[in-house]
Amino acid sequence: MEKIIIALDAMGGDNAPVETVKGGVLAANETGAKVILVGREEVIKEELKKYEYDSENIEIANATEVIGTDESPTSGIKKKKDSSVLVGLKLVKEGKANAFVSAGSTGALLVGGIMVLGKIEGVSRPVLGTGIPTVTGGYSFMLDCGANVDCKPSYLVQFAEMGAIYVESVMGIENPRVGLINNGAEKEKGNSLTKQTYELLEESGLNFVGNVEAVDIPFGKADVIVCDGFVGNMILKLCEGLPKALMSIIKEELVKTGDKNLIAGMAAPFGAVKSLFDAEEIGGAAFLGLNALLLKVHGGSQAGAIKNAVKQCVVFTQNDTLGKFSEKVK
Amino acid sequence: MEKIIIALDAMGGDNAPVETVKGGVLAANETGAKVILVGREEVIKEELKKYEYDSENIEIANATEVIGTDESPTSGIKKKKDSSVLVGLKLVKEGKANAFVSAGSTGALLVGGIMVLGKIEGVSRPVLGTGIPTVTGGYSFMLDCGANVDCKPSYLVQFAEMGAIYVESVMGIENPRVGLINNGAEKEKGNSLTKQTYELLEESGLNFVGNVEAVDIPFGKADVIVCDGFVGNMILKLCEGLPKALMSIIKEELVKTGDKNLIAGMAAPFGAVKSLFDAEEIGGAAFLGLNALLLKVHGGSQAGAIKNAVKQCVVFTQNDTLGKFSEKVK
Repeated sequence: MEKIIIALDAMGGDNAPVETVKGGVLAANETGAKVILVGREEVIKEELKKYEYDSENIEIANATEVIGTDESPTSGIKKKKDSSVLVGLKLVKEGKANAFVSAGSTGALLVGGIMVLGKIEGVSRPVLGTGIPTVTGGYSFMLDCGANVDCKPSYLVQFAEMGAIYVESVMGIENPRVGLINNGAEKEKGNSLTKQTYELLEESGLNFVGNVEAVDIPFGKADVIVCDGFVGNMILKLCEGLPKALMSIIKEELVKTGDKNLIAGMAAPFGAVKSLFDAEEIGGAAFLGLNALLLKVHGGSQAGAIKNAVKQCVVFTQNDTLGKFSEKVK
Repeated sequence: MEKIIIALDAMGGDNAPVETVKGGVLAANETGAKVILVGREEVIKEELKKYEYDSENIEIANATEVIGTDESPTSGIKKKKDSSVLVGLKLVKEGKANAFVSAGSTGALLVGGIMVLGKIEGVSRPVLGTGIPTVTGGYSFMLDCGANVDCKPSYLVQFAEMGAIYVESVMGIENPRVGLINNGAEKEKGNSLTKQTYELLEESGLNFVGNVEAVDIPFGKADVIVCDGFVGNMILKLCEGLPKALMSIIKEELVKTGDKNLIAGMAAPFGAVKSLFDAEEIGGAAFLGLNALLLKVHGGSQAGAIKNAVKQCVVFTQNDTLGKFSEKVK
């Protein structure tokens, strides 16, 4: 088997290059795959001095520019030819890496990804998928999280197909349950998009378990849940905002009690919720449907999250997930 | 000024007739308006024996049937001609009551309402609005909560217009801030529906404050927030499901600590969240755009919620809110 090589944007995100380089080294050491750190060579070299690693498994690809999260992705991609995102994507395009991980600008990754890598033949729209935490301790993999705000029914079926392959191949969930996010449990429910999608999903050969109402999303009724990117954005953002609002209300009430033991005692239970619903934890997303896997990790990611993302890319590649996508959509 | 008369479905909801009759009597006593209790006469008479009230202000309209929440609204409305919902709506249609309150089947109320009362001239689509609780202790009035799952931009503008009139007239919020629920803060963001709606809202003369991202909904950035009924359903249902999920996680962690003082001490803070985000509290919705106000209160409502709904109808009528709707949309 050929050596697996993952390109990693060493300059993207709030904690670059310290956490990105550390995450890359940890991933290389744990998986035996090669990690190409993309970014300013002298900066990365300096960081690398802190760690021990097999020099066969760590490489640097110099890139002198960075596209910020506050700049227009399209103009960033056009103007900054030597940005870490573009250099990383080109490594993948040229076959020098299998996948690319970045904690930088999501927009730049999507725009650059489509431009440089192109879509898999047969894929209508590349799609963003992310794990929504559930009370079961697991995740429902939701697509589309925001890449396509206007969708046709056939797009949603492809999202479901790629999502099912992804969670089976990368997360090891066999014959994953696929649900359609809808405004009612019954088949007849829905807007024109979801009604038509329901019919198509029934005939798709997927393990389609029917509609999933928003109230049931946190309870893990399906392994893969599909919706258009506008609705997905609503759900994702509400999963960020609502827990924050709730916690602020509970904390305010706690402070009112003036009971120090109570306040101290609640630190652990609150931590459990924070780690489950915090944007930094659920911020990671896979961009599927391009001719390679792109993983966007949250801007605030620490080394552990970077390491996990690289490992996910390794598993994705080992299991030829891309080949399975092509096979399905052709 | 003519006497205000509110019809109340005495048979609808989980706690009928005990809580509905009680709520009706309380409202009549507090407001001086007349309440017509619609339902089985002998049952209501029996309940009424418990209370003191001015007999001028309480009337019974006999209706022998009830449309259950588990039956098809359309066939229920067609078949049960003597149902409390239909009898109540007819009282309004015939000018014998100004508005109608029910804790029964939402579907039956909507279907029956459109059939019996008809739309205000100039209104494209009647719309369901409800208050989404915010951390400020107030509410954002969201329309559409689920009546119209496929919408045109012009519908959303009318939702905003009626919503603004409603919160100003009934809740006393002057020049209410109107927001568009969207997938980004910037004007350029959105799907085809919200992009076009944004342009129209800018020219509407409303106090339009721009896009409201889902993450910001619980933080009360606008008094009126508009979206299509599919998205509104997602938001409403997630506002039900997510707090439940979070509380179950926190409680599980609390129990793990085995600390009885901690568990007991958290009862009050948890109660504050429950009362704010509980479906029973946020379940009430106003159906706007028909030739009278219909208020749906949650099936599990107690007398207090019923009383508040009747009082809301009284204020609505006192301030000629219906006339203001007509004036705006004509």
